[in-house]
Amino acid sequence: MCYRKAAMQQRIIRASAHGWQGVEPAGYAAHAPDTGVTRHTIVGSRKNDPSEPGPKMELRYFEVQPGAASRLEKHEHEHYVVVRSGVGYAVIGDDVSELEANDVVYVGPLILHQFVNRGDTPFGFYCFVDSCRDFPQTPTPGELARLQASAAGAIAKPFAVPPPVRRP
Amino acid sequence: MCYRKAAMQQRIIRASAHGWQGVEPAGYAAHAPDTGVTRHTIVGSRKNDPSEPGPKMELRYFEVQPGAASRLEKHEHEHYVVVRSGVGYAVIGDDVSELEANDVVYVGPLILHQFVNRGDTPFGFYCFVDSCRDFPQTPTPGELARLQASAAGAIAKPFAVPPPVRRP
Repeated sequence: MCYRKAAMQQRIIRASAHGWQGVEPAGYAAHAPDTGVTRHTIVGSRKNDPSEPGPKMELRYFEVQPGAASRLEKHEHEHYVVVRSGVGYAVIGDDVSELEANDVVYVGPLILHQFVNRGDTPFGFYCFVDSCRDFPQTPTPGELARLQASAAGAIAKPFAVPPPVRRP
Repeated sequence: MCYRKAAMQQRIIRASAHGWQGVEPAGYAAHAPDTGVTRHTIVGSRKNDPSEPGPKMELRYFEVQPGAASRLEKHEHEHYVVVRSGVGYAVIGDDVSELEANDVVYVGPLILHQFVNRGDTPFGFYCFVDSCRDFPQTPTPGELARLQASAAGAIAKPFAVPPPVRRP
């Protein structure tokens, strides 16, 4: 299955009115269809082992509706985020920053983070990750208490997206 | 030096009028200042070994002036390109494709490629690469002859940028 996906990887993925040609938008998490966040996987696909064929990295585009947010989570793998449209907040550790188009965010290993729409139009950003990556972890009760006591506490939405389940 | 760069990696890199705050635009290649291409290294920096600290990947933004092009080259490392503004051509192997904003290009290992401005405004694109990567190779005479006989031959600019030299 991985091989088939790798063989089908297009070199040019053309933008369309609402995404990219041949890329079917999906819910943020298969078990949580109503989060207000859509995911477009433009290049690559998840691997269980780096030796599997196909692109080493995955390029996704997320669109977060007004009032919605990505999951508050941490993981070993890095995030490289480029904002395309709309306005949002980045919660990174105990800090919160306002984001707008063309701002870039680097999230290092095991840093708690979340992206929140702070406007009334969709907040869209590219996110680049390793194809072979660890699964997200939600904050421990201690981390959550610390976050809620920090500047980011008023912005973070710890329950915006249910905890992850491993995909088959 | 690598450690220092890693320690200085900002989490939020804010867009400014002509690039990003704290990111000094550079020439495409240090030894070729007049190519009409500028490079903004937004996240990460080149490594000699993956064990060096700092981001695993590098996020760059290239701005190609009208009439200019990136280097026609190939390498083992992959490219993930997202067009931000302007219009261009992607020469990928023997194929040529028109590009515009939000189009995405995946360039696999050892595929000859080049990005050419095809408009009268700057052509700007993000390009993600591994921080630890091999140096580019220019085409062999046989590859160049094959390219020039293909559909991409009329678009490619084999001498737009001089061959690379290893940076110290």
